[in-house]
Amino acid sequence: MSTPRVSSRSRASALDTTEKLFHSIAQKRSFLCVGLDPDPNRIPTAFGTGVEAMERFCLAMVEATLDLAVAFKPNLAFFEQYGSQGWAALERVAEAVPSDVLLIADAKRGDIGNTATRYAQAMFEGLGADAVTVAPYMGRDSVEPFTAFSDRWTVLLALTSNPGADDFEFHGNHPLFMEVLDKSQSFAHADRLMYVVGATRPEMLGAVRRRVPSAFLLVPGVGAQGGTVAEVAKQGMNDRCGLLVNSSRGILYAGGADASVEEAQRAATQAAQALQVEMKAALEASGLV
Amino acid sequence: MSTPRVSSRSRASALDTTEKLFHSIAQKRSFLCVGLDPDPNRIPTAFGTGVEAMERFCLAMVEATLDLAVAFKPNLAFFEQYGSQGWAALERVAEAVPSDVLLIADAKRGDIGNTATRYAQAMFEGLGADAVTVAPYMGRDSVEPFTAFSDRWTVLLALTSNPGADDFEFHGNHPLFMEVLDKSQSFAHADRLMYVVGATRPEMLGAVRRRVPSAFLLVPGVGAQGGTVAEVAKQGMNDRCGLLVNSSRGILYAGGADASVEEAQRAATQAAQALQVEMKAALEASGLV
Repeated sequence: MSTPRVSSRSRASALDTTEKLFHSIAQKRSFLCVGLDPDPNRIPTAFGTGVEAMERFCLAMVEATLDLAVAFKPNLAFFEQYGSQGWAALERVAEAVPSDVLLIADAKRGDIGNTATRYAQAMFEGLGADAVTVAPYMGRDSVEPFTAFSDRWTVLLALTSNPGADDFEFHGNHPLFMEVLDKSQSFAHADRLMYVVGATRPEMLGAVRRRVPSAFLLVPGVGAQGGTVAEVAKQGMNDRCGLLVNSSRGILYAGGADASVEEAQRAATQAAQALQVEMKAALEASGLV
Repeated sequence: MSTPRVSSRSRASALDTTEKLFHSIAQKRSFLCVGLDPDPNRIPTAFGTGVEAMERFCLAMVEATLDLAVAFKPNLAFFEQYGSQGWAALERVAEAVPSDVLLIADAKRGDIGNTATRYAQAMFEGLGADAVTVAPYMGRDSVEPFTAFSDRWTVLLALTSNPGADDFEFHGNHPLFMEVLDKSQSFAHADRLMYVVGATRPEMLGAVRRRVPSAFLLVPGVGAQGGTVAEVAKQGMNDRCGLLVNSSRGILYAGGADASVEEAQRAATQAAQALQVEMKAALEASGLV
């Protein structure tokens, strides 16, 4: 291979603008993002073992939830633990995600200029991702190489859902995560930014929404971590929905460790459906569908 | 493959403690880290093209500078742009780095709990790295899964050398990068932490050294970005050296685009040697060798 990788994932109708993404949300009556965090300790044994099981499991989960989700978010750590074989599996899983569903590479990369450009190419071109999560610590020149891609999303970490968020994200009189929101809005192509904001602090979600009225927010922390769809919608929804609510474990492992492939898929569909029903209600309550 | 990858890189005499690392520095009279940032636009054409050229070039650079460097730091972005084939090349390059030289995976990962553990496994076990760079934004539970590895280093971003460092790293009355230093010293196994501190702000390097007297600092920004070895040593050296000074472009591309393989290697050796001579002088001036 003489040039950097280019995914064969079709992006003919990729969800690269707010209007396209909202159209998909309105059509499916869902703002569900299914997080693909294939934990070897939790994948049902029916899928086998190792990297092959991981790939099989991810493909089965995509299939089981495709009608209910507007986005899939593979977590790169779980693939990288298998090295180059894991990356090859990731490439195949990414290509199995249709272009009318958003593919978010949860990579949390963050590095400067030239390096950031290579990461952006790896995610947007190599994997064919529509979006990638990026850490803001190193500032403007670590973010703009991502937003330079005209038809893709850059999902900046703002306020995460983990306990450690208290350590630095609230640093300063003007909390750091607010500074990230404010300052990043002046970066080049800020209209291509989304933000990660955890559901575990709903009052903060409201403050974020007031700060970035039109940005899409990627919201983890619903379900296992305690947030609810209704509360997230109340605090964070805007006139184009503006929300992607992520669920990983609650969907992937709904069938338990002893489930057959079919049982694991059925349980995942049901878990996704339960969230989608709540999302439909929230969209209807806001008059968006 | 039924289990996560484990590198065959020998770690029999890995430089996992301050004393071992200092011993290596004293022996080579060098605290040089060679950054492996194989940029397809700058690799001499004699190495060929694509991922094969990248691997060949990295192996040639390791060979050319092995006697002068105590650490090699592959930048994962440049490998990831080639997808799974790039990762396979990275695995082979990593395995070519002898165990008596520190292998630092420049990955700048940062994610929570379970995910961070997988990244740590990918880097420490999968690649056989002795150290990995980590972004602190998400706080304690994004760092401790790395420091949990008993014989490895976690290199936390503190004050980076890029212009964007001004955006968030100085946020707050107590600048964020200082808060990162202070708070991370209370994390579990803080003795396994190093910090990234750019050479482009020497006065800050001195302030960092006073804050973390015994920690090793990984210092980019010498050469192309303007810092000098003498100034870095003056501000940052402690009684175990406490410094790893990185140079990437200044060594890798010293021979120019039209160099033959031998010329590229010779030029790299000479560029590394020039830095090593300065480092030897600094170590002698401090009475460490």
